[in-house]
Amino acid sequence: MKALYFDGKRLEFREDYPMPERRSGEALIRVRYAGICGTDLEILRGYAEFRGVLGHEFVGEVVEADDESLIGERVVGEINIGCGECEFCKKGLEKHCANRLALGIRGKDGAFAEYLTLPEKNLHRVPEEISDTEAVFTEPLAAAYEILTQLHLKPSWKALLLGDGRLGQLIAQVLRHHVDLTVVGRHQRKLELLRDLGINAIMFNELDRSMRFDVVVDATGNPNAVLEAIKLVKPMGFLILKTTTSKPSKMPLSEIVVNEIIVIGSRCGPFKPALNALKERLIKVDYMIDGIYPITDWKKAFEKAMSRETLKIILKM
Amino acid sequence: MKALYFDGKRLEFREDYPMPERRSGEALIRVRYAGICGTDLEILRGYAEFRGVLGHEFVGEVVEADDESLIGERVVGEINIGCGECEFCKKGLEKHCANRLALGIRGKDGAFAEYLTLPEKNLHRVPEEISDTEAVFTEPLAAAYEILTQLHLKPSWKALLLGDGRLGQLIAQVLRHHVDLTVVGRHQRKLELLRDLGINAIMFNELDRSMRFDVVVDATGNPNAVLEAIKLVKPMGFLILKTTTSKPSKMPLSEIVVNEIIVIGSRCGPFKPALNALKERLIKVDYMIDGIYPITDWKKAFEKAMSRETLKIILKM
Repeated sequence: MKALYFDGKRLEFREDYPMPERRSGEALIRVRYAGICGTDLEILRGYAEFRGVLGHEFVGEVVEADDESLIGERVVGEINIGCGECEFCKKGLEKHCANRLALGIRGKDGAFAEYLTLPEKNLHRVPEEISDTEAVFTEPLAAAYEILTQLHLKPSWKALLLGDGRLGQLIAQVLRHHVDLTVVGRHQRKLELLRDLGINAIMFNELDRSMRFDVVVDATGNPNAVLEAIKLVKPMGFLILKTTTSKPSKMPLSEIVVNEIIVIGSRCGPFKPALNALKERLIKVDYMIDGIYPITDWKKAFEKAMSRETLKIILKM
Repeated sequence: MKALYFDGKRLEFREDYPMPERRSGEALIRVRYAGICGTDLEILRGYAEFRGVLGHEFVGEVVEADDESLIGERVVGEINIGCGECEFCKKGLEKHCANRLALGIRGKDGAFAEYLTLPEKNLHRVPEEISDTEAVFTEPLAAAYEILTQLHLKPSWKALLLGDGRLGQLIAQVLRHHVDLTVVGRHQRKLELLRDLGINAIMFNELDRSMRFDVVVDATGNPNAVLEAIKLVKPMGFLILKTTTSKPSKMPLSEIVVNEIIVIGSRCGPFKPALNALKERLIKVDYMIDGIYPITDWKKAFEKAMSRETLKIILKM
């Protein structure tokens, strides 16, 4: 089958990559579309030391499964696969299993291929109101919803979101209904898109740096942003970190201590509210698509995805 | 009056330092004893850019006050003085007032002197069951109790405390009744003292580094300890930071994000539970005193306090 394989140094297109083998409890899925995510680009720079088929945001069709009712269904899938035995797996927190695999990120071939396998329990049927290309956003939108599972956002709070990129656009739309939100970015076009949605979005240099927010979310992807972010949090306020990079950051610990700030790392989230929000049109995603490329045009697709001006690039299998 | 003054470069003994002026709402306190704290030593290294009389852990006797019932009372005092007007002061959180003063730390002469002033509302009477030198530990013990105000520690949790020093000894005694606690340090004598109290305390190199804890507390005073600490926290676990230093730390942010760790900065705490614990003999402090020096012997006292082997050094006014 066709697949985009990362050998630790470079991404390669393989025409005859072996089909994944479906194990008991798993479904074999024919991938229709897959999104290129910031994490994919970080992996190409060395993050997570992954080798294999890249890609973890997808929509596809079940071709084979133990559960016959799944066959032919259009699905998206949670990307973490736990050992099933540890304290985290037993609580349904496979994403924190120490021995987990993660689709296209850790020990498991991903979605930039014609076929992938995932445990049946990782799959969610896609309601018909959601288009294929919209469904591709389920996984990153779930990551945005993760913030709501971690912290009780209060209606009176002022919140600042740093980052106007792929994930920033989704987080902004999730948070706007919960707090008084300001988004700060570095790209006029992306900020304009947020303003078109009615979201208060300004350039970083327009921000009044003396302001302090109840909650600040860092979705910049920049390891140095945390230094600015921490100064914008009120005492006893919250700093939510979404940035995963391979580089360590300099942190002024005494600012965290003296101001008793709470820093919350935030990763994968719940698929159900994400699918529901897409179905109910609470969250818009179509406007973020800056290109859909056949997998054979992967070079162009990645080139475009790496541009700072681009939001979402989607591969068609 | 006699006072130890820090001019930004060095500490000096002054025989004829001006008496503090008592303002309305304040009490004038004759200091009996004052403890040397890690923060004092950090200030001498440049932390908080303080100039003035050092010292914030004290017990004394009220000499003058608006409230006459206070006169002659033996007191300890909360160290933060807020503006009284901001959102934090209105919630009783003067410690987070942006314009606060802090005794011997920020804009306010401290306790290494014969007299100090504090707002009457900052004062707490010392129950007679508590000796003068025990009372000196109220302020740091309150900082240990702050952890309990910030996080609901669950009885089934395994906790790791990094640091066997002044604050570590107090935190260990506070946490031991709430969680299954291990203390890790670098000083055999200090660990032995903890073991004498029945607390599980081991050298850092004896720790099984593959272990993961529900909560890790960093009370090392070392800006680099956080790098080790973060690796010892379970996914979705808590890292409580007590270390204030002038140096920034390198933080692997992606570990916080991927493991969804919650980092909590923790500073000054509630005096009432601290005084109650001292009164009820729930917490032992006497064993920590490694020397009591008259203020005129301040050089010896600070020399001793700076030794890595020392726990608490107390100045007698």
